[in-house]
Amino acid sequence: MSIVTILGAGLMGSALAYPLSDKGHEVRLVGTHLDGPTIESCRSRRFHPRLRRELPPNASAFPHARLDEALEGASIVVSGVNSLGVHWAGRELGPRLRAGQVLIAVTKGLEAAPDGEPLILPEVLRGELPPAIRESIPIAAIGGPCIAGELAGRRQSFVMFGCPDAAALELLVRAFATDYYHPIPTADLAGLELCAALKNAYTLGVGLAAGMLEAAGGVDGAEAHMHNLAAALFAEGTTEMARLLGALGRRRELAYMLPAAGDLYVTAMGGRTVKLGRLLGSGKSFAEARSILEGETLEAAEIVKAMARILPALEARGAVGPGELPLLRALVGIVARGEPAGLDFARLARGLAG
Amino acid sequence: MSIVTILGAGLMGSALAYPLSDKGHEVRLVGTHLDGPTIESCRSRRFHPRLRRELPPNASAFPHARLDEALEGASIVVSGVNSLGVHWAGRELGPRLRAGQVLIAVTKGLEAAPDGEPLILPEVLRGELPPAIRESIPIAAIGGPCIAGELAGRRQSFVMFGCPDAAALELLVRAFATDYYHPIPTADLAGLELCAALKNAYTLGVGLAAGMLEAAGGVDGAEAHMHNLAAALFAEGTTEMARLLGALGRRRELAYMLPAAGDLYVTAMGGRTVKLGRLLGSGKSFAEARSILEGETLEAAEIVKAMARILPALEARGAVGPGELPLLRALVGIVARGEPAGLDFARLARGLAG
Repeated sequence: MSIVTILGAGLMGSALAYPLSDKGHEVRLVGTHLDGPTIESCRSRRFHPRLRRELPPNASAFPHARLDEALEGASIVVSGVNSLGVHWAGRELGPRLRAGQVLIAVTKGLEAAPDGEPLILPEVLRGELPPAIRESIPIAAIGGPCIAGELAGRRQSFVMFGCPDAAALELLVRAFATDYYHPIPTADLAGLELCAALKNAYTLGVGLAAGMLEAAGGVDGAEAHMHNLAAALFAEGTTEMARLLGALGRRRELAYMLPAAGDLYVTAMGGRTVKLGRLLGSGKSFAEARSILEGETLEAAEIVKAMARILPALEARGAVGPGELPLLRALVGIVARGEPAGLDFARLARGLAG
Repeated sequence: MSIVTILGAGLMGSALAYPLSDKGHEVRLVGTHLDGPTIESCRSRRFHPRLRRELPPNASAFPHARLDEALEGASIVVSGVNSLGVHWAGRELGPRLRAGQVLIAVTKGLEAAPDGEPLILPEVLRGELPPAIRESIPIAAIGGPCIAGELAGRRQSFVMFGCPDAAALELLVRAFATDYYHPIPTADLAGLELCAALKNAYTLGVGLAAGMLEAAGGVDGAEAHMHNLAAALFAEGTTEMARLLGALGRRRELAYMLPAAGDLYVTAMGGRTVKLGRLLGSGKSFAEARSILEGETLEAAEIVKAMARILPALEARGAVGPGELPLLRALVGIVARGEPAGLDFARLARGLAG
């Protein structure tokens, strides 16, 4: 059994403590400067207030000031921060990592390099590590449908672990797998991360339908919703993910698998991204919607903004044609350029032709 | 503008009257022997009781006895019956069809030929036509996410029309397309029909999760559902659809497109197939569930039974290996062999690896 240190006591980082503890590992959950009250509750009452559950038996909580101590002897380090904290996490962990340790990240997001190439968050994290260990620490990531509260409730959860380093990947899968948490290994880290990010953007797209229904006066006298439109937006999302995976040299097949179709399915069930999509679909500008959702981390909007910079680069090298990806272009217009939500349905139909 | 005759005044057949009427066609909605009260209401009050809407302006309703008259001068004939009525519809329409007419079917289902090869319903329909016209009448079908009540409510709806005859396909798309109904043409009729059928079977699979949640005592104190499991079953469904499309020589890409992922998304939102899946997942046998749902047409169960006969043929010719398609095999066990619902989660994880 190993020592596993998790930096970040948010929902997903903390939820991983449950299968790890059940597997018999010593789990050390370290708060960031934002997690003070969570860590305090975990330490004084062994109760995680955000997950609303008792801490699992083999887990203990550490305040941020004790990160050094928490990393002592750890063979696996989990980056459990959100997308805004990735650079910070890399700088915090970097000087403290030792050869032989393996890093795995739960964060979903995407950045654009200055040349418009997509930069997946594990690479962002790697870029913050000191040069001496930058290339020697294996970095893996988790993708796929996983509501943290369900994982902490020991509900059946199936995810993908991506890492190009086969030995590190095998070590991670073995360390995390329980009879209710099923990490499925893939070498295609970039494909997995693209899905994890893009499915957030497309959740925004699916959410537009609920807002358009509101704008049209809601359910009519014969109870017609706009599920047909939502389903078309869902399918356009998976179809565009396949197109983007292909354009970026990754496996298009991921589009119908766990990290794309599967994760889009559960993410589109509800949550803040759907809420943002609904606000935009109902006619609110992005600025208005953002102020209504003040205080929420809107990862999907950041991903769309990254895609606004990536798309021209893909077009410039001929990987994507001008009429392609109508839903992504609509989202870019709404979120990155502040345009009113509007869908060109004929263009959407052409996108759906594949 | 043309005359379009629809046989079957069920939800989907009738809903097609709305875009057709809005396009200016003369629409004749003909009831089957089961549609007496519907046709009576349409004729006396111009109100469709099942759709709960006024009949569209250019549509008129005909009792079954007046089918001959209703077919006079029609250039497009719609088979709007359910899967149990396909053979009957073929025999009813067959002797009355004339060269130059085009047939389009809304029915979703699947049969198995005696040798275990899949038989899509347009081919079943074709088999019932008189030999003289059997090969000369183009037969098309509609697939993709479309809740009939929304289409009749003139909500945005995107579907696929499949037909190997390019001229007939173009004629149909032009005839039906409005600014809210978007038929997307594909030559791959068999691929489309497989998706339309299989997505029903896999909706049963997604529905199991809700039943398993009930069997586990429901939502827990921290409100954990089993959405992660539902999402994994969704992804396994789309992944298995891709595998089956490939094994049957069709385009695997359809799995992430409108007729598979898109239609599975909307079908899994609710309805009788989800209800059946939930009953099975909660521990009821198929016989018990069927008696609870007495009177409902359980197309998904018939499709699973057809797949129970198709699977051995696929294995026999080496197109599918023995460990593949774990979700379909579980459904076959439950529905066709009366086994209790149970999922081998490790096997499911191997399926999700693709």
